[in-house]
Amino acid sequence: MSEIERALREVDANLDTAVADLLELISIPSVSGEDAGKAGIARAATWLDDALTAIGFSSRVVETACNPVVLARSEGAKEGGKRLLFYGHYDVQPVAPREAWTHDPFAPEIVEEDGARRFYGRGASDSKSQLWSFIEALRAWKAANGAFPAEIVIVLEGEEEMGSPSLGAFLEQHGEELHCDVAFICDSDMWSPTRPSITTQLKGLVHETVTINAPNPDLHSGHYGAAAANPIRILSKILSSLHDEKGRVAIDGFYDDVADLTESQRTRWRELSNELDASGGVSLAGGVIEDGYTAIEAMWGRPAVDFNGITGGNQGPGGRSVLPGSATARLTFRLVAGQSPETVRNRFRNFVSGRVPDGCSVEFEGPEGNAAVHLSESNPFLVAAARGLEAEWGRPAVLKGTGGAIPVVGALNDGLGLDCVVLGFILESDAIHAPDEHYDVERLHRGTRSWIRIFGEIRGGSAS
Amino acid sequence: MSEIERALREVDANLDTAVADLLELISIPSVSGEDAGKAGIARAATWLDDALTAIGFSSRVVETACNPVVLARSEGAKEGGKRLLFYGHYDVQPVAPREAWTHDPFAPEIVEEDGARRFYGRGASDSKSQLWSFIEALRAWKAANGAFPAEIVIVLEGEEEMGSPSLGAFLEQHGEELHCDVAFICDSDMWSPTRPSITTQLKGLVHETVTINAPNPDLHSGHYGAAAANPIRILSKILSSLHDEKGRVAIDGFYDDVADLTESQRTRWRELSNELDASGGVSLAGGVIEDGYTAIEAMWGRPAVDFNGITGGNQGPGGRSVLPGSATARLTFRLVAGQSPETVRNRFRNFVSGRVPDGCSVEFEGPEGNAAVHLSESNPFLVAAARGLEAEWGRPAVLKGTGGAIPVVGALNDGLGLDCVVLGFILESDAIHAPDEHYDVERLHRGTRSWIRIFGEIRGGSAS
Repeated sequence: MSEIERALREVDANLDTAVADLLELISIPSVSGEDAGKAGIARAATWLDDALTAIGFSSRVVETACNPVVLARSEGAKEGGKRLLFYGHYDVQPVAPREAWTHDPFAPEIVEEDGARRFYGRGASDSKSQLWSFIEALRAWKAANGAFPAEIVIVLEGEEEMGSPSLGAFLEQHGEELHCDVAFICDSDMWSPTRPSITTQLKGLVHETVTINAPNPDLHSGHYGAAAANPIRILSKILSSLHDEKGRVAIDGFYDDVADLTESQRTRWRELSNELDASGGVSLAGGVIEDGYTAIEAMWGRPAVDFNGITGGNQGPGGRSVLPGSATARLTFRLVAGQSPETVRNRFRNFVSGRVPDGCSVEFEGPEGNAAVHLSESNPFLVAAARGLEAEWGRPAVLKGTGGAIPVVGALNDGLGLDCVVLGFILESDAIHAPDEHYDVERLHRGTRSWIRIFGEIRGGSAS
Repeated sequence: MSEIERALREVDANLDTAVADLLELISIPSVSGEDAGKAGIARAATWLDDALTAIGFSSRVVETACNPVVLARSEGAKEGGKRLLFYGHYDVQPVAPREAWTHDPFAPEIVEEDGARRFYGRGASDSKSQLWSFIEALRAWKAANGAFPAEIVIVLEGEEEMGSPSLGAFLEQHGEELHCDVAFICDSDMWSPTRPSITTQLKGLVHETVTINAPNPDLHSGHYGAAAANPIRILSKILSSLHDEKGRVAIDGFYDDVADLTESQRTRWRELSNELDASGGVSLAGGVIEDGYTAIEAMWGRPAVDFNGITGGNQGPGGRSVLPGSATARLTFRLVAGQSPETVRNRFRNFVSGRVPDGCSVEFEGPEGNAAVHLSESNPFLVAAARGLEAEWGRPAVLKGTGGAIPVVGALNDGLGLDCVVLGFILESDAIHAPDEHYDVERLHRGTRSWIRIFGEIRGGSAS
């Protein structure tokens, strides 16, 4: 019997115990971003630290300026052996609105439903089942084969749901310990309930806040509306000039550094469009897809600017005759490979500044941006992961892109120079971040088995 | 000695008493729109009711759904005599921020300052000195000449500063008693400290709230921003298309019913532009004046649409990757003579509806609008008022327009068919609605004398 077969048997045999342990972890209310969650955060970190220690890791709870990181390492590295980092997060979203839940968010139990063995709870899907899948796989591999499949570093974060404020400092302080050949980020979703996926392209991100100020404070719009500068009018005109009639960003030079999609990529993505609507139930009616591209191409592979918020003057209810002294818009640029966040930011600011009338002024604000991250499709760990997933699920993994940021990927990539293989077993229907979040036993089981097959591929397959 | 001369002597002789009484009225904190002001409202209404009774009126306090109206009538009408309505309001703005006042807002006293005898207090200018000027003039005329100058109806409102919620119902219930030949509205300002004015053109007003809804609720903008409909983007585009490059409103037919300004009007208004900046210290840099018009022409005589408020998605602080499900703008149309509020509203709604992409929807909301009010410059009471003001101040009264609404004018005009002569003695520098609101003895004196001269003109002059 091969290493892989032995480990798969161990996973199968231990399923009930793995589920019971996971439900215990989900029952700990480790909500980040709320003072009330602090005790749950501490309990979950300790619980995981104990669990990792029990299966043979050298584990500890590392305090940060905010929530602790659980950092575990396998002992006894072999010279020249591979070193793999696994990332997960144990913090969860707040439950509000509590009254919209039909299940207790922190008392999970198995429910037979729609032919599945489901469990409901905050964090059931995002992301406690995800981190538990690789921990249980590592445990089973060692139990079956006497050692971990490689040298392992595990990083379990406690503030992912609040924007990872301490992650950068943590990586900086512990960079030496975290040095690995690759990082596996287990916090993303499947392409469909029957087809796995790996995210190989993440767009870059630049947040900008732009405020137009009139030369006057708020005025009576009846008196001055027909004559004085109106920041809402100026801002609307600027925002509406940011796209041309083809849906392209109209900022000079915006596409200068953008490599167009390759034909092979377009061909593969168009096949996906046929297979399943990439919008996941979201209506794209009235949408803004750039001329000449499909929805998937626009969402995964084309740079964009989105308007996230706008505010100025009377916020209602009802009418008020105010000519506001200022108006503000919040927007985000989503970048693709080749684009520099700073260059995009500067071009945007020049674009806006050149359209502000004399006598009015503009203010900009925005945190440091980050560039797009692309993982080469020939990366050996990516190839191993794709093979392992295909072996478990019987269908090739979709190699996909995303317009959403995964902060840890940028941080590991920029900060430690680590390639990241981003995968996970979440489904759109799991109601993550929403009431009645849930997951099911089968996906925990098959997710764990997927890791076993990936370990096998890394040890004996293309990554060896 | 003429009636006028006798009455002017009485005004001069009684000045100290008139000022003392006015300061007592200002000391009553009759703040509307705040629960804490209710007792002051009641006291001020009773105080005025007593004062009007004392000088020979048949006065009473009329309760409404909100704050009471003081309604007074002179007894003994002569058949065929003139009947004049005087309107003022005794409620005042809140004082907040109290700490910004250097004087007690409700303990006025005479201060010698900059060569003037000033008194500070909330309501000193807006509008207790205004209503006191015509009450004192009516008292003096009767004291000097044995009878009021005509049959008189006085309406003193207690909720002007909160939008006059009960005024319409009051006028409807008491229309018979209020039947008059003309209404004098004493709540407006002078053209300059040395030149009186009468407001003869008031723009109409249509408030509109427009909400663009995407087919989806809030989405993750990273995932869907490059493809799904963005209500902020749709709304910005619609707002920016509401004006053409000449600053004209781009709605089909918007100007169809608009009579252009006459050459004589333009000539007179251009002379005013030369005399004094109509913007009252407000900067018009970066402004929106329609091509081919001056600021005064745009503000007083040209229809306009103003953007008063906009809101949607992330209101900050900071960035958030949200693609909002909806965005809302609040705007007002300011109409000139000839334009129907309903027609303008319908044209606007058609304009917007035709620009909402398929799959998105739009909602509109807005209270009933009102049309512009123009007083003919040959109206005999206007002519009498202009002559009386010129006699007192030694300079012709400016006949001006305003883009701001004066609700009582629309209500009296629409509801009772009453022509309104709108004048007053407020100055921009009085700090109305602001901390350290003030007025001065000389303007109370000359304002009161102005009314005496207007009474004289009505009795013997062009209005006879």
